[in-house]
Amino acid sequence: MNAAYDRLKARAARIATLGEAQAMLHWDASAMMPPGGAAARGEQLATLAGLAHELATAPEVAEDLAVAEAEGEWDRANLELMRRAHRRSAALPTALVEAMARANSACESTWREAKARSDFALVRPALEEVVRLQREMARALSAALGLSPYDALMEGYQRGVTAAEVEPVFAAYEAFLREALPRAEAIQARRPAPRPLPGPFPVDKQRLLCRRMSERVGLDYGHARLDESLHPFCGGTPTDVRLTTFYAEDDVAKALMGVLHETGHAQYERGLPAAWARQPVGDAAGMAAHESQSLIVEMQACRSDGFLSFLGRELRASFGGDPALYATENLVALWRRVERGHIRVDADELTYPAHVILRFRLERAMIEGALEVADLPAAWNEGFSALLGIVPPDDARGCLQDIHWHDGAFGYFPSYTLGAMAAAQLMQAARREVPEIDDALAQGEMLPLMAWLREKVHAQGSRLGFQDLLRHATGKLLDPEDFMGHLRRRYLNV
Amino acid sequence: MNAAYDRLKARAARIATLGEAQAMLHWDASAMMPPGGAAARGEQLATLAGLAHELATAPEVAEDLAVAEAEGEWDRANLELMRRAHRRSAALPTALVEAMARANSACESTWREAKARSDFALVRPALEEVVRLQREMARALSAALGLSPYDALMEGYQRGVTAAEVEPVFAAYEAFLREALPRAEAIQARRPAPRPLPGPFPVDKQRLLCRRMSERVGLDYGHARLDESLHPFCGGTPTDVRLTTFYAEDDVAKALMGVLHETGHAQYERGLPAAWARQPVGDAAGMAAHESQSLIVEMQACRSDGFLSFLGRELRASFGGDPALYATENLVALWRRVERGHIRVDADELTYPAHVILRFRLERAMIEGALEVADLPAAWNEGFSALLGIVPPDDARGCLQDIHWHDGAFGYFPSYTLGAMAAAQLMQAARREVPEIDDALAQGEMLPLMAWLREKVHAQGSRLGFQDLLRHATGKLLDPEDFMGHLRRRYLNV
Repeated sequence: MNAAYDRLKARAARIATLGEAQAMLHWDASAMMPPGGAAARGEQLATLAGLAHELATAPEVAEDLAVAEAEGEWDRANLELMRRAHRRSAALPTALVEAMARANSACESTWREAKARSDFALVRPALEEVVRLQREMARALSAALGLSPYDALMEGYQRGVTAAEVEPVFAAYEAFLREALPRAEAIQARRPAPRPLPGPFPVDKQRLLCRRMSERVGLDYGHARLDESLHPFCGGTPTDVRLTTFYAEDDVAKALMGVLHETGHAQYERGLPAAWARQPVGDAAGMAAHESQSLIVEMQACRSDGFLSFLGRELRASFGGDPALYATENLVALWRRVERGHIRVDADELTYPAHVILRFRLERAMIEGALEVADLPAAWNEGFSALLGIVPPDDARGCLQDIHWHDGAFGYFPSYTLGAMAAAQLMQAARREVPEIDDALAQGEMLPLMAWLREKVHAQGSRLGFQDLLRHATGKLLDPEDFMGHLRRRYLNV
Repeated sequence: MNAAYDRLKARAARIATLGEAQAMLHWDASAMMPPGGAAARGEQLATLAGLAHELATAPEVAEDLAVAEAEGEWDRANLELMRRAHRRSAALPTALVEAMARANSACESTWREAKARSDFALVRPALEEVVRLQREMARALSAALGLSPYDALMEGYQRGVTAAEVEPVFAAYEAFLREALPRAEAIQARRPAPRPLPGPFPVDKQRLLCRRMSERVGLDYGHARLDESLHPFCGGTPTDVRLTTFYAEDDVAKALMGVLHETGHAQYERGLPAAWARQPVGDAAGMAAHESQSLIVEMQACRSDGFLSFLGRELRASFGGDPALYATENLVALWRRVERGHIRVDADELTYPAHVILRFRLERAMIEGALEVADLPAAWNEGFSALLGIVPPDDARGCLQDIHWHDGAFGYFPSYTLGAMAAAQLMQAARREVPEIDDALAQGEMLPLMAWLREKVHAQGSRLGFQDLLRHATGKLLDPEDFMGHLRRRYLNV
């Protein structure tokens, strides 16, 4: 330890606290803000982003980083993460950072209307500006980091992961899917059709159920809220987590599974090491790691036979009707149904990676200049049809469906599938080390799994990168075979 | 205009935008935040306050202010307000500003519990810290501004108003009240007792009614929200106003009159000159001016005979029951009832100033060091009993009732009564200039009054101070006689 490192820690805490303020304002913009507040919110976020960037790039930071020393594994990792963050920040002028914040806010708010009207032309100019600025950022980061422009963006979401590493994994999955999807569909076709649960499901009852189920996963509402937004997410800060969902009166699974998913994210935030709060090493280990936590809760645990049997009892108590509807086999047929659909967030876990692979290829092409925004709808429809054999009926169910690009997130999408793969790998390791996990799930009891994740993943903060975290928790680097094995067992009767 | 002034304007906009972020986080803390988020929120607010203060006191500000030139009335006023703000900021070290933000957040959150438990001892240490820091601030400002310590705080809320100006006004009111209150009570006692409206009033229905009535006043919910909080207020920003209220199932007037009051504040913010947004001259003219706008809506307009007759019809449509209950005379008897009560926010307009006079004297004594926090409950009870002849049964209904001191607001309370007086004066002028105001109110139509206020008050921003604003709008400086005349007509049959 030395004085330079202490100053860097104090500065990191200040920057992180500004980040908390931004997170709350982002949540508010999605869950609470009246439409007339959008322009001012854009200015507020841009100003905070600009100030955080000024703090991060002040001349004394480089001076302190040059002489800072840290002792002990956590402090050393913390200092290394500070150096990494500084390389990224120093590559970007404050004017660009503020311009991006402003352009992202403006595009996001136009996108909401464009999506509602399925009118790509409406958002196109705003999205072009976002892409222009993202390309500028990617070029600047590329030069500073010695990575390709797209890799430079991607590593902002998940450090140490490159397109060269992702590409073969995705190619292997594409090949797997080409064979597995028709087989899964054929197996499914031979089974009795699922019987839909009787709706409507009043929103008030859904809200109570969602809250109770997220509490079963371990979420403490003394440190959390559950609200509504068009695009569900988990935001806020570790001691004040903000989950959102979207209630559909005719489909209880949409909100329920969504909330369980976001609860996985929330539990990761809640379990981060409090002693390192507001330090780089106290953060989550990246977006793929984050997605592994939402998916291990939603896909691995909550859609398991055991938890679905518990959920059937809970649903029947909430909504009533024929007990046979709530039998595990019917819930499995309903909620583990494989279906070629247009909407990523509604996709089953087998076809979901196809949605991600498409976006990965398109966003990479956009950043590299091989695809222009004007050509996005056509490229989307062509790519989607090549992967899943169906063509989106309109842009709202095509290239307008996701908030990400319209909010300036390029390089983020691969995290979803890396996270799904990591979730399967973590679940396999957890089951090996904690044999009672499945019996507990059948009782709606998540503690054995969560306790394991707390120790192996959450409490590690950012000490380890994605691959090292997996090795620490499971004994090996990312191994897509665990995910494919899980899918074969669940969907191909293997 | 010169480059220095342009730089100052850009900086002012940045500081104001940080203020907007703080306003949203304050609103969230009161209306949304789970209790576990309080500590982090305190850090967020402290960090934003500290950064805003650094921006305000950077060495180049003083240099630019020394040479800045502005042309035209608005720009000149803007520059003068910048100089004034700089004198205040430069007097305070950033560490004190951050310490106050932190202490205020901590005390406010303890106060919520202390009030619920009526346990002054619980909040006493936190309040002592708040008062210690307020005294430190007052001393620093006093030296820089050449004002007494208390005046230096007070002028932060309402520029140009001093205790020496307020004292005789309050003394005159105390004398007036000593005679008027028993007379009003005697007159009231001779009338038939009011018949309470039939409850319960379901919260959902109240919410709809409150929203509709605030829309009648002119509020546009494309730029506003109405939520709930323990201590109702109007926060947010001019294009995104956040009103809160508190619904009581047994008393519809509490939320309804509260929302109408906050709508007056909201309309002031909405009507500020957009061309001067985020510049000092585009702000509201101070807290007394602000309170005049809430009170002209609530007390002058909405509790007038005309508007109560309209409200009676609306209430009956919402809640049903015996038509006689909703007759104007019964609503007058219910909602213009004079009563010696303990709670400021529930007080009628005749006794309300007594609540303010007490707080003015106590807070002044605390800032001047003549009263310690430990002695506050006793001093409160003694002072209250001297003014209104009743003794609070507990501290929750005594010195713990208000958020203000616990949130670090000292010097603010006089604004309430100055605002009430200004509201009566403005209403008298408006009625003189726009004769159709009262006929319109009887139809639930607020536009004639609001249009006058828009022009005479809202659109003036901060160009004029409190007294000059009154002179501009009414032709004279603050004249408490207008308020006492209003009270005599309403309560003493004069």
